[in-house]
Amino acid sequence: MNIKFQVDEKEEYTILSFELEGNLPPSELKEVKPPNLIGAKGVVLSGRGPIWLYCYLTHVYHPTRFVATYDPRVGGAVVAETHCKEYSVGDIIKLDI
Amino acid sequence: MNIKFQVDEKEEYTILSFELEGNLPPSELKEVKPPNLIGAKGVVLSGRGPIWLYCYLTHVYHPTRFVATYDPRVGGAVVAETHCKEYSVGDIIKLDI
Repeated sequence: MNIKFQVDEKEEYTILSFELEGNLPPSELKEVKPPNLIGAKGVVLSGRGPIWLYCYLTHVYHPTRFVATYDPRVGGAVVAETHCKEYSVGDIIKLDI
Repeated sequence: MNIKFQVDEKEEYTILSFELEGNLPPSELKEVKPPNLIGAKGVVLSGRGPIWLYCYLTHVYHPTRFVATYDPRVGGAVVAETHCKEYSVGDIIKLDI
């Protein structure tokens, strides 16, 4: 499996970074084993990869507090899904990545 | 709102294409009103836009049969989330877009 995950725990969320070694064929998506994360926190996804990988991970981490994706163009992570009052869709979480 | 949706019904899924007029700031994500779709079908997302928009739409269409995202590099849509036996994560749906 040519994907490596790195977990960085922050107080309110976990930064889940991934790195692809070369290309990830769609047929290997079902072999990807994302790490178990603390559902009481949010998850920030970061890495260069196809959109369907991000959508897959968004679904995997659906039970967590919120899911945000790092976007270098906005200089932070944008909340895409939330189940709490403190974070709204479209909120930007400033990060040093 | 500078996003336009287009709905194209196929037998097994709905192709939901979107087009952004210029830039979509994260702060406008909560104003996006994705159309109601038939939950008994899958949804194929297609369009040029930020990853967090795709992740947002993936969550919005979570109650449907499956969610796939069109990827021109694989020449089809890749299933990212599924709730049925007929479509698995990583399956490629060939499309003429």
